Amino acid sequence: MTGKLYGLGLGPGDPELITLKAHRILTAAPVIAYPAPDTGPSFARQIAASYIGAHQLEVPVVMPMRVERFPAQEVYDAAAETIGRHLDAGSDVAVLCEGDPFFYGSFMYLFERLADRYPTEIVPGVSSVMAAASALKRPLAARNDVLSVVPGPLGDDILEARIAAADAVAIIKVGRHFTRIRALIERLGLMGQAAYAERVSLDNQQLMPLDDVPDDAAPYFSMILIYKGGEVWHPAFRNNEAGA
Amino acid sequence: MTGKLYGLGLGPGDPELITLKAHRILTAAPVIAYPAPDTGPSFARQIAASYIGAHQLEVPVVMPMRVERFPAQEVYDAAAETIGRHLDAGSDVAVLCEGDPFFYGSFMYLFERLADRYPTEIVPGVSSVMAAASALKRPLAARNDVLSVVPGPLGDDILEARIAAADAVAIIKVGRHFTRIRALIERLGLMGQAAYAERVSLDNQQLMPLDDVPDDAAPYFSMILIYKGGEVWHPAFRNNEAGA
Repeated sequence: MTGKLYGLGLGPGDPELITLKAHRILTAAPVIAYPAPDTGPSFARQIAASYIGAHQLEVPVVMPMRVERFPAQEVYDAAAETIGRHLDAGSDVAVLCEGDPFFYGSFMYLFERLADRYPTEIVPGVSSVMAAASALKRPLAARNDVLSVVPGPLGDDILEARIAAADAVAIIKVGRHFTRIRALIERLGLMGQAAYAERVSLDNQQLMPLDDVPDDAAPYFSMILIYKGGEVWHPAFRNNEAGA
Repeated sequence: MTGKLYGLGLGPGDPELITLKAHRILTAAPVIAYPAPDTGPSFARQIAASYIGAHQLEVPVVMPMRVERFPAQEVYDAAAETIGRHLDAGSDVAVLCEGDPFFYGSFMYLFERLADRYPTEIVPGVSSVMAAASALKRPLAARNDVLSVVPGPLGDDILEARIAAADAVAIIKVGRHFTRIRALIERLGLMGQAAYAERVSLDNQQLMPLDDVPDDAAPYFSMILIYKGGEVWHPAFRNNEAGA
């Protein structure tokens, strides 16, 4: 009997936005794996930190983060081998994933190496896109709206076309592309409908009109939401900020 | 001191896919409101049923479901008045929402009537779109993929344009539009990349290639995922179905 491989969506950052199911599996798993940068802490592990016990074995999957490129095959090959040994030994392995495992997550690289050999279950999580709309107190999509999720590294031409083809747009992976993307949104006349959201659901969450963001590069965990239907700053948002 | 209004995302259907935060607020709220059809049970209440106590007051927001039209203003006006009275009396009110409250949810109609007068918090939930990708064991979007969420009631021309403008597409609210949408997908040559998902995460969940779906109308809680990058039926999916 081999162990079972789990991909656990942990949500956008607030440890309370983990699902009951992910919490149950996380606290029971003998082995926990998670992506980690080569310097600094693992965000996925930080989300789960208060639920991890000293008896649980941890397998960080250390990925060089210097450049945005196709994730190194060798790192995932080696991690899959390590995880496979635990599964062979009959231990369940829970892979911690920020947000949702199959929504722009790195879990797919382990999944494609292991899922044909071991029983596998993916537990979906709250996406940072939905969490940003909740934090902004502005409905993301309604009725027959088309919502598009568009990665910021795409070029201006394709960004413009994708924005034109949707009613609401979430631009993710903004990071070092921030200045270019904001200039494009300004050129398209959409600044009044664009909101910036950073580290959503965490204590140091930042929400502001896109126009108010300082010009230096935005962090990787940031996104821009464009509500083409109207003003993003719903009066209720301001009222609640004051009254909350 | 008025009470606080909560919009609680309950996830796609499995009661274990509720977040710890929604669970905490749900079990503590003296008043619980939820959308309900005029006949049959409320899906949102069904998800939460095992967490609701006899001491909690329930406010069903009964909406005639016969036709897909703009939700009746009068129903929401009356519900907002009832909920407002509880908030005025100092009671917190938790509005239960399937999936995520601001992702095609009806919570926005209560939110826009109440959020300017009462402290309001929205708790994001797991979307059925992410849950469908997890159940299908097929990554929804990766790297620089554009993901579009497209409501099925839209006409063929706009559906075709939106499908063309994305790498992955989730067609939601399929319901009585199923036959027309499937014919369109066949015309576009995308049948091999299209999956049908129904009642995701529930015991009676259905997952199948779009081609295999019987021709009679699909239920409202169904969606079609199109993975333009390749075959939807990852070998791991079939293996895991057998081995799970």
